[in-house]
Amino acid sequence: MDAVSVIRTKRDRGRLDDAQIDWVLAAYTRGEVADEQMSALAMAILLNGMDRAEIARWTAAMIASGERMDFSALPRPTADKHSTGGVGDKITLPLAPLVAACGAAVPQLSGRGLGHTGGTLDKLESIPGWRALLSNDEMLGVLRDAGAVICAAGDGLAPADKKLYALRDVTGTVESIPLIASSIMSKKIAEGTGSLVLDVKVGSGAFMKNLADARELASTMVGLGTDHGVRTVALLTDMSTPLGLTAGNALEVRESVEVLAGGGPSDVVELTLALAREMLDAAGLEHADPAKALADGSAMDVWRRMITAQGGDPDATLPTARETETVTAPASGVLTRLDAYAVGVAAWRLGAGRARKEDPVQAGAGVELHAKPGDTVTAGQPLLTLHTDTPEKFAYARQALEGAVDVAGEGTGFEPVPLILGRIG
Amino acid sequence: MDAVSVIRTKRDRGRLDDAQIDWVLAAYTRGEVADEQMSALAMAILLNGMDRAEIARWTAAMIASGERMDFSALPRPTADKHSTGGVGDKITLPLAPLVAACGAAVPQLSGRGLGHTGGTLDKLESIPGWRALLSNDEMLGVLRDAGAVICAAGDGLAPADKKLYALRDVTGTVESIPLIASSIMSKKIAEGTGSLVLDVKVGSGAFMKNLADARELASTMVGLGTDHGVRTVALLTDMSTPLGLTAGNALEVRESVEVLAGGGPSDVVELTLALAREMLDAAGLEHADPAKALADGSAMDVWRRMITAQGGDPDATLPTARETETVTAPASGVLTRLDAYAVGVAAWRLGAGRARKEDPVQAGAGVELHAKPGDTVTAGQPLLTLHTDTPEKFAYARQALEGAVDVAGEGTGFEPVPLILGRIG
Repeated sequence: MDAVSVIRTKRDRGRLDDAQIDWVLAAYTRGEVADEQMSALAMAILLNGMDRAEIARWTAAMIASGERMDFSALPRPTADKHSTGGVGDKITLPLAPLVAACGAAVPQLSGRGLGHTGGTLDKLESIPGWRALLSNDEMLGVLRDAGAVICAAGDGLAPADKKLYALRDVTGTVESIPLIASSIMSKKIAEGTGSLVLDVKVGSGAFMKNLADARELASTMVGLGTDHGVRTVALLTDMSTPLGLTAGNALEVRESVEVLAGGGPSDVVELTLALAREMLDAAGLEHADPAKALADGSAMDVWRRMITAQGGDPDATLPTARETETVTAPASGVLTRLDAYAVGVAAWRLGAGRARKEDPVQAGAGVELHAKPGDTVTAGQPLLTLHTDTPEKFAYARQALEGAVDVAGEGTGFEPVPLILGRIG
Repeated sequence: MDAVSVIRTKRDRGRLDDAQIDWVLAAYTRGEVADEQMSALAMAILLNGMDRAEIARWTAAMIASGERMDFSALPRPTADKHSTGGVGDKITLPLAPLVAACGAAVPQLSGRGLGHTGGTLDKLESIPGWRALLSNDEMLGVLRDAGAVICAAGDGLAPADKKLYALRDVTGTVESIPLIASSIMSKKIAEGTGSLVLDVKVGSGAFMKNLADARELASTMVGLGTDHGVRTVALLTDMSTPLGLTAGNALEVRESVEVLAGGGPSDVVELTLALAREMLDAAGLEHADPAKALADGSAMDVWRRMITAQGGDPDATLPTARETETVTAPASGVLTRLDAYAVGVAAWRLGAGRARKEDPVQAGAGVELHAKPGDTVTAGQPLLTLHTDTPEKFAYARQALEGAVDVAGEGTGFEPVPLILGRIG
């Protein structure tokens, strides 16, 4: 077996057989297949595709490149959630403790932000003292004690994926449904959860810009999970406008705590509850009542235990940015569009995100929204507040927001986009 | 400008603009664009193509990555030839002195063999004392004194191509007409010849397996040469069977000397004369008579001066392999097929070629043919002689020859393939 023959097979629109897939991923993990060979293969896969069986084997080979976790000794059923990423998507923060409060164990291995979408770990690190990096034993301990844990994935899980993901980022080979699906699912299956709910985002602020692509990605991932014995469901949800009223690390933690306290923006609450019900159903806990667990404070109790167990102080004051500036409504009327991608890029430029994975993030930076599509606004009223420690970035962030807002005069019909666009299960 | 945006443009079937092409090749030469990024781009180019203007700019950027030679001070017009490579293709050896004997200056920068096709420098190095590596001044000196020089291209010519060529070899991105055409033509244009004749080979022993691909490659290269002010013509020639009666380094030198002495196999003589006439026409020497220069010994005189000027002894005994074995005709009748690729692989396995560019070659190794398609053979008569210093390779070479020979019974019509299949000028 050699790398060039594997690359040629896919380049010439052939099927990769099991032996080719197993060999190329194992050899790549060992460093015997070079980065320049794997990137040529990734480009050939992106352009010529993989069929269902190839994707399944590719995923299995990535899982086999590392260790697998096992939560079967826990007394509770495990449930996990993955979002394909969006702007203002802080749902994991209220969701994990909520589902744990309803009786499931929630081992939530999460990532950091790259580009315009935020990362769950970056958000939680704005809580003073909180640690993302746990050993496997520590993780199991938090899971046992609090019912939920949100932490970084260890290096041992799907190392082939880790290497390939970093390579795809610099070689223009990210946007491939087979590669995205196998990357997400290899980590989630290696993590050992019994059930999984996928939140596949669609719209300007998401990787998938249209419903057809999102549906294909969702059904590919549901198929992969099911084939590996993980009960898997996907919701397709709107990401044309930011989720909630904040995009930024500490800003989003504050909003998540509001939701856990029984308040918070209605779209965040709606999506948190919808995903919680799917996770509980998939975990065999269909009689649990997540709305009650939000209202009676039991979800908040899990949150506090979980944060404390990872060294964080749930009562600490969250960091705020040193400077703010306001963006005002350009006209009076109904806000018909507030573009998610533009807000995500603005938050990123203000310091909430990173350009390279070794860059630091600002805990307080981000964008706060004072209106959402469908709201009536008056010309000159505050529409957004920009937060940053580096005020020289305000102008650069405002550039990202040019053309991001539409306000329509009276009498213009505004048809809100539903938050949940579909379900694949 | 960044590598990912350039890769994405081509990945998404867009046109690379001049600034993108100039930047990516200059940055790659400087090491700022990584190999894994360039290989992803090469795969995207292979699969999505480049248009005429993109190929022209790509070629110009590769030329601009290094130095350009200039032979305009020579008193004679310069003429050069390039073959896309085949089995038994020793034509450069008799051709360069022949064309010089007719009045042109022939600066022939040549390469080494890789894979199943031989390299001109490897062949000449079987002459005791002969040196391939000359300084620019030495090269000019040989060209002035002998009229022709065959030597290695310096590192300064088209370094972007040198780097990219090595990368394509290990990433399955060789078989792209835009990349092949720009690779060949960037070196030839940087070399500074006034006219160029391309020998584009078609058939099992060539890179181009069918006439349509060969024609596209040829017309792409002719267009590139013409656009850069080089009078360029291409012949499309058959490579379904080896050229002449030998494939191997010293074996081919011996055959070339036979041609220069007025003998040699008819196909080698035919192609040498056809290419010589094209080169002389392109150089404005249409009244020269290459057949006469072969017959009267003047081409042989140039050969002897050229070899001597590069340290070689034209009268030295050429090395021979330590062991030989005979392959016999499997049946009696007309030999209808003797596959070029199979013979090339057999010669390579016997030690005439190399698997990696740092490998040595055996001067005496190779395959000698005792019959060519169209000849009548008798079962059991010697058909091929295999030569090697490493007799343990005989079995491996014989494997390559399995199925390579067809002999048809009497009465079967045999239609010989013409040697010259077309001309693009």
